Amino acid sequence: MYEPKEIEIMESVYDKNEEKARQINASLTASGVYAVNMMGAPGVGKTSCLIKLIRALGDTACSVIEGDIESDIDTQKLLSLGVNTVQINTGGACHLDSPVIGEAVEGLCLKSGVLFIENIGNLVCPAEFEIGEHAKMLISAVTEGSDKPYKYPLAFEKADIILLNKCDLLAYTDFDEDFFLKGVRALNKIAPVVKVSCKTGEGFDEAVLWIKEKIKA
Amino acid sequence: MYEPKEIEIMESVYDKNEEKARQINASLTASGVYAVNMMGAPGVGKTSCLIKLIRALGDTACSVIEGDIESDIDTQKLLSLGVNTVQINTGGACHLDSPVIGEAVEGLCLKSGVLFIENIGNLVCPAEFEIGEHAKMLISAVTEGSDKPYKYPLAFEKADIILLNKCDLLAYTDFDEDFFLKGVRALNKIAPVVKVSCKTGEGFDEAVLWIKEKIKA
Repeated sequence: MYEPKEIEIMESVYDKNEEKARQINASLTASGVYAVNMMGAPGVGKTSCLIKLIRALGDTACSVIEGDIESDIDTQKLLSLGVNTVQINTGGACHLDSPVIGEAVEGLCLKSGVLFIENIGNLVCPAEFEIGEHAKMLISAVTEGSDKPYKYPLAFEKADIILLNKCDLLAYTDFDEDFFLKGVRALNKIAPVVKVSCKTGEGFDEAVLWIKEKIKA
Repeated sequence: MYEPKEIEIMESVYDKNEEKARQINASLTASGVYAVNMMGAPGVGKTSCLIKLIRALGDTACSVIEGDIESDIDTQKLLSLGVNTVQINTGGACHLDSPVIGEAVEGLCLKSGVLFIENIGNLVCPAEFEIGEHAKMLISAVTEGSDKPYKYPLAFEKADIILLNKCDLLAYTDFDEDFFLKGVRALNKIAPVVKVSCKTGEGFDEAVLWIKEKIKA
């Protein structure tokens, strides 16, 4: 008896989220702000990649919305580096949604540049919810193993760019690059896959070039 | 208007899950089966730990319920090793729940030994749902970074035992063991934290000893 009700309500919540996401996206576009939704599993290096990208973007104004279940460890790190950052603690919710992003965006009063939104560390649910972004950047890592596209397809399917992080550890793992890329390409023909390392700095020039091209377009 | 309705229905779903979990737990206990709910983020090494534990358990009968969003990569691996395994594909759902485990347990016709239930790779939602287990085993890894207990507290709080995996990579990461343990102990005073490596085999004797003590009790 309650199942059809539940589905109806979930659809209503989902539709409201998508509608709000479209509003946020239009408002950011009008302000000349390019928003990047950064997704990836816990510990894959989302914040470390964020910092590398912001540094490599040089004079481009960058802001961050930092999503976490709890804690403000990453926000404190970003603020100490002088990055305009707002923390969202979901208190348990496993993904960000557009109502909460709408409020955070209002608080930031952005006028131009790039807004990075670091989603909750989760390779499943964040991919299901639009939050007003212009692009989805998926962070994967060689330490996670090469089967992730096969096991968590939606995030790889929806990504506009994929950073393969922790490549400095490649020699110490049994990561199979061909198997990984085959899995990615079965889901997503066009997203660039960029090998990066936050330790060595490898690959961030290429990732930043991609963002700069998008801003220009 | 729909929010109170949603909450009511979610509670109803949650209560039904807990009730079914108690039934499964009672039925497994009556059969002499000890069930371990294995939780952890994507790529943390849940299946690799599973295989190490099963081998180290020797003559103890072991079965596996393998939870994945999609694919049967891990089930094929386990079946090829002769392990009695049933695959659950949630098709998008980010955690296992007790109705789906109830069906899988019925299919397995277990009589004794250990049932490992590998949950969906997710450090958030699986910790919220009982699935009939006797113990929750949390797998973390040094490659994820030492701040995970602070960012994803519920899984660490609820764990009965924590395996800290990929310790063979400790020298190549900036993992801070003291900070990690301080975070764990702020949430959980009693769960043993066992350093393991699926590459070198380190630590699995200790983990298996813990399981054997639990079976005897």
